Amino acid sequence: MTADNDEIVIDQPRDEDAYALDRNIVAAILQAVEDGDRDRLVELMEPLHAADIADLLEQISPQDRSQLLHLYDREFDGDILSELDESVREEVIDELRPDVLAEAVRELESDDVVDLLEDLEHSQQEAVLDALEDSERIAAQKALSYPEHSAGRLMQREVVMVPEHWTVGQTIDYMRAHEDLPDQFYHVVLVDPRLKPVGQVTLGRLMAARRDTPLRDIADEEFHIIPLTQDEEDVAYAFKQYHLISAPVVDDDGRLVGVITIDDAMEVLDDEHEEDMLRMAGVDEDSSLSDTILETARGRATWLFVNLLTAIFASLVINLFTETIDQMVALAVLMPIVASMGGNAGTQTMTVTVRAIATRDLTANNALRVLFREVSVGALNGLFFGLVMAVVAGFWFGVPMLAVVIGLAMVLTLVAAALGGILIPLALDRLNIDPALASGPFVTTVTDVVGFFAFLGLAAQVLL
Amino acid sequence: MTADNDEIVIDQPRDEDAYALDRNIVAAILQAVEDGDRDRLVELMEPLHAADIADLLEQISPQDRSQLLHLYDREFDGDILSELDESVREEVIDELRPDVLAEAVRELESDDVVDLLEDLEHSQQEAVLDALEDSERIAAQKALSYPEHSAGRLMQREVVMVPEHWTVGQTIDYMRAHEDLPDQFYHVVLVDPRLKPVGQVTLGRLMAARRDTPLRDIADEEFHIIPLTQDEEDVAYAFKQYHLISAPVVDDDGRLVGVITIDDAMEVLDDEHEEDMLRMAGVDEDSSLSDTILETARGRATWLFVNLLTAIFASLVINLFTETIDQMVALAVLMPIVASMGGNAGTQTMTVTVRAIATRDLTANNALRVLFREVSVGALNGLFFGLVMAVVAGFWFGVPMLAVVIGLAMVLTLVAAALGGILIPLALDRLNIDPALASGPFVTTVTDVVGFFAFLGLAAQVLL
Repeated sequence: MTADNDEIVIDQPRDEDAYALDRNIVAAILQAVEDGDRDRLVELMEPLHAADIADLLEQISPQDRSQLLHLYDREFDGDILSELDESVREEVIDELRPDVLAEAVRELESDDVVDLLEDLEHSQQEAVLDALEDSERIAAQKALSYPEHSAGRLMQREVVMVPEHWTVGQTIDYMRAHEDLPDQFYHVVLVDPRLKPVGQVTLGRLMAARRDTPLRDIADEEFHIIPLTQDEEDVAYAFKQYHLISAPVVDDDGRLVGVITIDDAMEVLDDEHEEDMLRMAGVDEDSSLSDTILETARGRATWLFVNLLTAIFASLVINLFTETIDQMVALAVLMPIVASMGGNAGTQTMTVTVRAIATRDLTANNALRVLFREVSVGALNGLFFGLVMAVVAGFWFGVPMLAVVIGLAMVLTLVAAALGGILIPLALDRLNIDPALASGPFVTTVTDVVGFFAFLGLAAQVLL
Repeated sequence: MTADNDEIVIDQPRDEDAYALDRNIVAAILQAVEDGDRDRLVELMEPLHAADIADLLEQISPQDRSQLLHLYDREFDGDILSELDESVREEVIDELRPDVLAEAVRELESDDVVDLLEDLEHSQQEAVLDALEDSERIAAQKALSYPEHSAGRLMQREVVMVPEHWTVGQTIDYMRAHEDLPDQFYHVVLVDPRLKPVGQVTLGRLMAARRDTPLRDIADEEFHIIPLTQDEEDVAYAFKQYHLISAPVVDDDGRLVGVITIDDAMEVLDDEHEEDMLRMAGVDEDSSLSDTILETARGRATWLFVNLLTAIFASLVINLFTETIDQMVALAVLMPIVASMGGNAGTQTMTVTVRAIATRDLTANNALRVLFREVSVGALNGLFFGLVMAVVAGFWFGVPMLAVVIGLAMVLTLVAAALGGILIPLALDRLNIDPALASGPFVTTVTDVVGFFAFLGLAAQVLL
C-alpha cells in the first residue's frame, strides 16, 4: 500500500463545526448527482473518509441516496457499509448491484463482516454471506453463533501469536515472512503449546529490544484475557478501566480464538452511552434520524403510553381531593409546582445513580453511604425550596396555612424523590433489568403521587 | 521490565458483576487497615490495578481512606492519582507525605501529570510541580499554558519521529539504539526537515516490511493531524469517526509537538458522555459520589431553582383559569396529564436532537427534514394519545365536550413539544451554548405552558 497524500486531512483549529460535513461539498455532490456527472461525483467523493460518506448518505433524502448509489456504483467501498446506520444500511444494500455488494463485503475485516451481518434481515444476510469466500463465510457463521453483544461477536479472528519461549529475533523474522498480518495489531500474543495465551508484548517494546531477548522478559506487566461469552459492555468497561489497547479472547477451554482492539471497545462504549441516554428519555435505542415517521412514532409511543398510565394514576390521587380543590382553587394552581420539583429532583438522583451503576462507582460497598447522602441532599433542598415556595405562596394567595402546607409538602416530596431516585435503579439492577430503561416511569410515579398526595392531603387536613 | 504473572487477571465469563470490586476483598482490606496490618494490606492490594485501587479509595469512608493511606504509605503508586475522582484526589494528595507524593508523581507520563495538575487547587499544584524534575516541570507548565480542554493538554510530548526519507531498516536501528522510547506508541511519525508531520507508519507494517523499504511506501493511507488548540471533544470525535489509534499534534506553525493516543480520546469521549447525561438531568457535571452533602445539595439546587421559576410560570397560566376550574374541578384532575405527556414527548425529541448534534448527524443538510419528521411524529402521537385520553376522560367524567377538549389539547401540546424539542437545542447550539446544559428548562416551559393553556383555554371556550 502506498501513501496517498491527497487524502491527508489537516483539521482547522478552533473551527466551530470541526468535522461536520461541509455544506458546500454536500451541495456540490448533490449537483453532480443531479447532472448525472459520474466523474465529478467520484472526484468530489475521493477525499472523503468512508465514515463521512456514510454520514452523507444518512443525511440526504432517500431519492438522492438512490441516485447517488447508482451513479457511484463500482466505487462503493465496503467500509462505508460498516459505518452506516442500520436503517440506511438495509436500504443501501438493497440498492447496490449484487456484484458491487460482493466486492464491497470481501474487503472487510472479519469483525466488520460480523458487525454488518448481525443487524441485517435474513434475506440480506444470505446475500452478504453468498458474497464471501468459503472460509470467510464459515468463519462469519461461526461468529454469528456466539451470543449477541458478546466478545465473540466483537473480536477479530486475525491475531498474531507466537510460542512463549521465542525470542525477539525469531518473532520479527516470523512476522517478516508472514504475508497475511492483520491490518491493525498492537501486540504479539504469547501462547503455550495448548494455545492458551500466557502474555503479550507490545510492538513498541519488540522494536526496541535486542534480537536475543526472550519475549517473556519484555511481556506486559498486566494482561487481560477476555472470555468469548463476556458481554460487550463489560469488555468496553475493561478497556476503559485498565487502559487496554488490545486483549486476547479465549474460548471455554481457555484457548486463544481472537483479539479485541480498543477501537471496537470505543465503539461499544459510545453505543452503550447512546443507549443509556435514549433509554432514560424513553426513546427506542435502535431508532435513528433516518427512520420513517411511522417507525419513529411507534418507537416513541411505547414510553408515552407508560407515561400516560402513570399520569392517570397521579390524577386519581388528585381526584381524591376534588372537594378540597373546590373549596380552594389555589391548590390547583400550586400543586403542579410540587410535582414538578419532585420530578426534577428525582431525575437528578436517578441519573447520578444510573451513571454510577454503569461505571461501577456505586456498589454494595458504598450503597448505604450514598443513600444517606442523597436523602440528606433531598431533605436539605426540600427545606430550602419549601421555604422559598412558602414565602411565594404566602404572598401570592395571602393564606399563611397554605404557605405551611406547600413548604411541608416540598420537603416530603424531595425526600421521596431522593429515595425513589436511588432505590428504584438499584432494585432494577438487582433484578437484571437495565436501570436506564425502566427507572424513569417508576421514579416519576413516586414523585407525582407523593407530591400530589402530600400537598392536597395536608391541605385537606390543615386548611379546611 | 519483566512479566509478572501474579498480575494476570482471568475474567470470569458471564459474571453479572464483572469488574465490580469484590465485596470480600474490600472487607479484607478494611480489616487489615483496622488491624494496622501493613504486610497483609500490601499483599491484598498487590493484585489490584491502579484503577481498581482508585475505585476502592472512592468507595470507602473518609476515615478508612485516611488510615489506609497512612498504612500503605510508600507503596502508593502514581497511577492511582491519575485514576482518582477530583474530590477524592485532593484529599489523597493532602494525606500523602511529601516524599511519597513526589515519588508517585515522578512515575507518571507527561500527559498524566498535566491531567493531574489541571484539576488541582493552586497550593497542591505547587506541591506537585515541586516534586518534578526541572525538565518535567517546565514541560508541565508549558502544557498548562495551552487552553483548557485543548489537544495541547491531552497530548503526550513523547513521540517517535523520523525523517521522511528513511527506510524501514534505518528506523528499526534507530529505535533499537534509542533508550528512551515512550511506554506506549503505535506509530512512527514521518517529518520533513522543518518538523512538519507528513505521514505515519504503524509498527505492525514496519515489522512486516523488508529493511530496504522506504517508509513512504508503507505510510498510512489516511492520516489525521490535530492542531494544538483543537477542543478535546473534537479530538475524541475524530478518533471515533476515523478509527484513529494515535494522531500527531502540531503547533500553529504546523510543527510536530506531541501525539494523542486513543486511550486518552476514549477517556474524553466517556467524560463528554457523562457530562451530557448529567447536564441533561440538571446535575453539576463535576459532581461525584464522594462530594459532601452540602456540595451536592448546592450543585443540584441551581437547576432546581431554574425549574422552580418555570413551574411558577406555568402556574401563572393555570391562575388565569381559576374561574373555569372552579366551575369544573375535573379540569384540575386532568390538566397534569396533558402537561406530563407534553413534557415527556418534548424530552424524547430533545434527547434525540442533543445526541444528533453531538454526533454531527444533525446538520444544516438535514435539519429541515428532521424538523418535519419530528413535528409529524408529534402530530401522529398527539392524535393517538388524544383519542385515548378523550375516551378515558369521556367515560371518567361523562362530559363529551371534556373529551373533545383534552383530545385537542393533547395534539397541540405534542406538536409544540416536538417543535420545542428540536428548535431549542438547535438554537442553543447556534449560540454556542451546550444544548445538553440548557435545553431542558426551556423545553419543559414550552410544554407546560402550551399544555395548560391549550387545555384550560379550550375548556373555557367550549365548556362554559
